[in-house]
Amino acid sequence: MSAVLVTGIGELVTNGPGQGDGLLGLRHGAAVVCEDGRVRWVGSATEAPAADRVVDVGGRAVLPGFVDAHTHLVFAGDRAAEFAARMAGERYDGGGIASTVAATRASDDDTLRALLADRIAELRSQGTTTVEIKSGYGLTTADELRALRLAAEVTTETTFLGAHVVPPDHDHDSYLRLVLGEMIPACAGAARWLDVFCEPASAHAFDGDQSRAVLEAGRDAGFALRVHGNQLGPGPGVRLAVELGAASVDHCTFLDDADVDALAAGDTVATLLPGVEFATRSPYPDARRLLDAGVTVALATDCNPGTCYTTSMPLIIALAVREMGMTPAEAVRAATAGAARSLWRDDVGSITVGSRADLAVLDAPSHLHLAYRPGVPLARALDVG
Amino acid sequence: MSAVLVTGIGELVTNGPGQGDGLLGLRHGAAVVCEDGRVRWVGSATEAPAADRVVDVGGRAVLPGFVDAHTHLVFAGDRAAEFAARMAGERYDGGGIASTVAATRASDDDTLRALLADRIAELRSQGTTTVEIKSGYGLTTADELRALRLAAEVTTETTFLGAHVVPPDHDHDSYLRLVLGEMIPACAGAARWLDVFCEPASAHAFDGDQSRAVLEAGRDAGFALRVHGNQLGPGPGVRLAVELGAASVDHCTFLDDADVDALAAGDTVATLLPGVEFATRSPYPDARRLLDAGVTVALATDCNPGTCYTTSMPLIIALAVREMGMTPAEAVRAATAGAARSLWRDDVGSITVGSRADLAVLDAPSHLHLAYRPGVPLARALDVG
Ligand SMILES: [Zn+2]
Ligand SMILES: [Zn+2]
Repeated sequence: MSAVLVTGIGELVTNGPGQGDGLLGLRHGAAVVCEDGRVRWVGSATEAPAADRVVDVGGRAVLPGFVDAHTHLVFAGDRAAEFAARMAGERYDGGGIASTVAATRASDDDTLRALLADRIAELRSQGTTTVEIKSGYGLTTADELRALRLAAEVTTETTFLGAHVVPPDHDHDSYLRLVLGEMIPACAGAARWLDVFCEPASAHAFDGDQSRAVLEAGRDAGFALRVHGNQLGPGPGVRLAVELGAASVDHCTFLDDADVDALAAGDTVATLLPGVEFATRSPYPDARRLLDAGVTVALATDCNPGTCYTTSMPLIIALAVREMGMTPAEAVRAATAGAARSLWRDDVGSITVGSRADLAVLDAPSHLHLAYRPGVPLARALDVG
Repeated sequence: MSAVLVTGIGELVTNGPGQGDGLLGLRHGAAVVCEDGRVRWVGSATEAPAADRVVDVGGRAVLPGFVDAHTHLVFAGDRAAEFAARMAGERYDGGGIASTVAATRASDDDTLRALLADRIAELRSQGTTTVEIKSGYGLTTADELRALRLAAEVTTETTFLGAHVVPPDHDHDSYLRLVLGEMIPACAGAARWLDVFCEPASAHAFDGDQSRAVLEAGRDAGFALRVHGNQLGPGPGVRLAVELGAASVDHCTFLDDADVDALAAGDTVATLLPGVEFATRSPYPDARRLLDAGVTVALATDCNPGTCYTTSMPLIIALAVREMGMTPAEAVRAATAGAARSLWRDDVGSITVGSRADLAVLDAPSHLHLAYRPGVPLARALDVG
């Protein structure tokens, strides 16, 4: 292993408390030394220690690699035509999520592995260095286990989402019996997290009581918890997540005052997924209200073939600024440090001594450009290996 | 020169009448032969002639390179902080467009040339192969001429936009005298097009009478015409453009029925710039209304440092679908064939025998993915040289 000095940094986003200016801990004229996959030193470039290799980024901005804490990357099949029909306001009977479940089940491991590898490369080429991946397109014990095994090949942040939707060959009761009686015991140990799609407004998702049963069983089986909540309408998802100590409740589009108060009083992060609202032409969550209430906000892509097939955290940041009232700094923080907190990770999302050497670099002098230059592929993961 | 066979095309967008299915003239199983910078043959891959070189695109979609028919790429200076202030709803007194004019005037030719080259490379890396470039940050005869000279080094589609805004050292009357009496004669022959920012709602732009005077003088001096019209409020820009036979009227955000009728009855293309509405948090133009009235619609970035600093035609397509009611096919056509028509070009914007060999390739099987996968850098210009 050798030490790598990253220098020529136009602006360094540290996210470190007391490490620089403002919400992002901004430093100018700074340099970073990485070794053995960790940040070893952060300081003024004029005082940088010697290193085995020097990477001069030519005045570009450097920031912690994005943490995409909500994705559904293990899937096969194509739903572009469904998207086009939705945008045209047409009915489309291509099967929706069931078509993804069928295509995923029908694919062999190597096919899914190759699709997943392509998506991971695509994320990384846009600056994402940590990714959470959910199961949820298997919906049998064996298929869910397989998805988690494939996900574990590329990330430690794996999430069992057997309780995604009720598959066509089950009703709610029979499927819940399967999740509680067979899947959770079988998947315990195969994933770090357990998630449930708590959405009373959807005929295919789970109501408050059902979601509580899944979450409590998951907690008892050793999973840490996450929740899909309050996406399509008001519901108990947010309060349930806070009550049960979930790390994150994701979507948060329809919140009442009690939901916001619960989030503000608890430790659960609100993870917002504005790519979904973009791709489904739906109203956006009110990030401003959450931030003003003191809630920790994270941003993620929700990358999935049905409701948001983007891997681009820069687009999510631009949408957060345009559509949700976040400042560029708040959005960048939510896509890095906020998202790290939603995964209970303190080794990513910041550039401080001891953190992982997961850096991203922008073809721009400042983090502001992520929102100022929407759609432009400015970010990429920086190789300091 | 040697013939290049492009094969393995998952979906070919020809835009050619009678060349394939639907609005985009889609073909599957097709191949293209290019030679000497031109398309020489389009047909079934199984019947492709021999070539000196074969490019197998591995099932990817191939389409005409994007035609970005409205940009302001010759500029210096950074206005990211102004953008951030606008998004936060704060007043910002950084000088706005005047700061770009000052920074551009203060830069030497090589600085501007290098900035322009970076932007052209950025466009091309996202699939744009034809670009129109306006002056308008010089606002003296010498500075406008210089901008046009630099623009002409990278494109034939150069536009004199001396009548962009009234600079701080002039009032409307004195500046119009300069534009009419000195700039237009001096710039005649230095640019193909003349454009005017016709916007009675703006204190810095030009009303209907002033715009007419500029456009008529430009026409008499040999320029073909384009107009910035109806961006910030209702106004005479659209009807003036149609009356004077302008190739395009750009923005078209605030239209009344008479404007739409005039466009439908005339030959002027309506070029929509939804990146501006994205970056300024403004209401979007109603593309659906224009399309339903039979108007030819084009899409462009309006890339500029103040109101929309994106070079990404894929983002513009995604916004057109999300925000303006266009189908993915309509948006792709508007970004290629529609934009070509807005430049009176029949050699770009389609892939037909005799057209320029300006091809783009997507990391995706279909044009649908440009809107289905927002923010993901799927498109790039294909090298067939
Ligand atoms: Zn999700
Ligand atoms: Zn413009």
